[in-house]
Amino acid sequence: MTIETISENRSFGGTQGVYRHRSTATGTDMTFGLFLPEVARYAPVPALFFLSGLTCTHENAMIKAAAQAHADEAGIALVFPDTSPRGEGVADDEAYDLGQGAGFYVNATEGPWAPHYRMWDYITEELPALLGANMPIDEGALGITGHSMGGHGALTIAMTMPDRFRSVSALAPIANPTRSDWGRKQLAAYLGNDESTWAAHDATLLMTARGFPGDVLIDQGSADQFLDLLMPERLAHAMAARRQPGRFRMQEGFDHSYWFVQSFIEEHVFFHAERLL
Amino acid sequence: MTIETISENRSFGGTQGVYRHRSTATGTDMTFGLFLPEVARYAPVPALFFLSGLTCTHENAMIKAAAQAHADEAGIALVFPDTSPRGEGVADDEAYDLGQGAGFYVNATEGPWAPHYRMWDYITEELPALLGANMPIDEGALGITGHSMGGHGALTIAMTMPDRFRSVSALAPIANPTRSDWGRKQLAAYLGNDESTWAAHDATLLMTARGFPGDVLIDQGSADQFLDLLMPERLAHAMAARRQPGRFRMQEGFDHSYWFVQSFIEEHVFFHAERLL
Repeated sequence: MTIETISENRSFGGTQGVYRHRSTATGTDMTFGLFLPEVARYAPVPALFFLSGLTCTHENAMIKAAAQAHADEAGIALVFPDTSPRGEGVADDEAYDLGQGAGFYVNATEGPWAPHYRMWDYITEELPALLGANMPIDEGALGITGHSMGGHGALTIAMTMPDRFRSVSALAPIANPTRSDWGRKQLAAYLGNDESTWAAHDATLLMTARGFPGDVLIDQGSADQFLDLLMPERLAHAMAARRQPGRFRMQEGFDHSYWFVQSFIEEHVFFHAERLL
Repeated sequence: MTIETISENRSFGGTQGVYRHRSTATGTDMTFGLFLPEVARYAPVPALFFLSGLTCTHENAMIKAAAQAHADEAGIALVFPDTSPRGEGVADDEAYDLGQGAGFYVNATEGPWAPHYRMWDYITEELPALLGANMPIDEGALGITGHSMGGHGALTIAMTMPDRFRSVSALAPIANPTRSDWGRKQLAAYLGNDESTWAAHDATLLMTARGFPGDVLIDQGSADQFLDLLMPERLAHAMAARRQPGRFRMQEGFDHSYWFVQSFIEEHVFFHAERLL
């Protein structure tokens, strides 16, 4: 597996890189950002995957979340994957919330999406293995977080594969996509109309059915302009009903933007570092 | 003077806003970013102006420098002005380093620039007065910093008007523009071919001639791809020859990007806060 270096910039004591590789999962080239802290010069470090939201590439959180300072201090890597396969020959849709930039972190089974939209496999299998083999990353010490659609991805993946991702948190996640316009359309497109296949990709349903073996950290802004689509109250209810260890925090006055993400990213980075190191 | 609110987002304990107003200095609408820390709810606060570099708008440093966390903690505001007048009827050039996005923080005297390119007056007079009158900003407690062309602006303005800006620092400033291709072309265009008028806009010459009454903080990356244009060694020599209080720091391995700016912005924010509060 060859990894092409797009850019590397010194950032704090470490390096912020952008890399591209041929993905067997998606059958396309995939680009990701990787921040390596200073301590990664000496030994493999844990890594926190940050899954991004609708319309994002690998760049948004990498540039706007301001997580690097904290990751360097904590001694963990940050991984910023793209949100879908891209390129010519990859199916797309005119809507911002379907197709390229909107992979929803599932393995699509339906046409025209099935050939390339395999973000679940990409995030859970291919990218961890790639990083473990080629970068100073401890593949056995991975955490996962995300924003909006990425929070959905982080929660559904971690609850399904807690041995793969040992810590999980989310910022303003799409919490109940099987009941939301941010979800029903996409799950129908990618997985088909049999709604029984959707349940594996709904954080509220997974929280009710199985939860997560560690404690969970959720932050949500009270002034989020998408509260009706995110439905955080469903997840909060499921967490409390299950007695899931963790914290659901409603943060007063914050909206859905990266200004919200940036305001709480330090706590998320250290939350994961404490559980992975 | 009316100020139009473009956006306001809660950020940490404060608010990141973007505002637009009619400028009498430039004769155009001007947009700026303003971060107000939590403590600005209770009393006016000092403000740090961040002047940006070539091709930037008010957005680049606002989004990429990750200064808000530190400004909120320090209790100072951050002001992110644009780098030039803009719009139809405003002269421009096809080159990235002249015209819109490249005002060089001077008052142009030559055609076609003279009517609108009055960034010196905008930064030193109009914007401070506007903020003092309309925002919880202590107009008597202003500091100034900047990156690249903005570092040039910060240094030249502060050394000329130390009563207006009581603290100054810079990140990878254009240090000797009268001797650089980042400078000679622009100063000739904006100020004319009489080079005696350029000296007022050259940090190295001003450092030699008058210096700054407080201590000065300069950071420069050793792997900066524009070292030949920035000429930091000239400024370092002038600082040392003058016995200028302050620090010139060559930061190993950092380039010219915002990854460099972000890596040191905390120290710059607190440097100014300690001198303004």
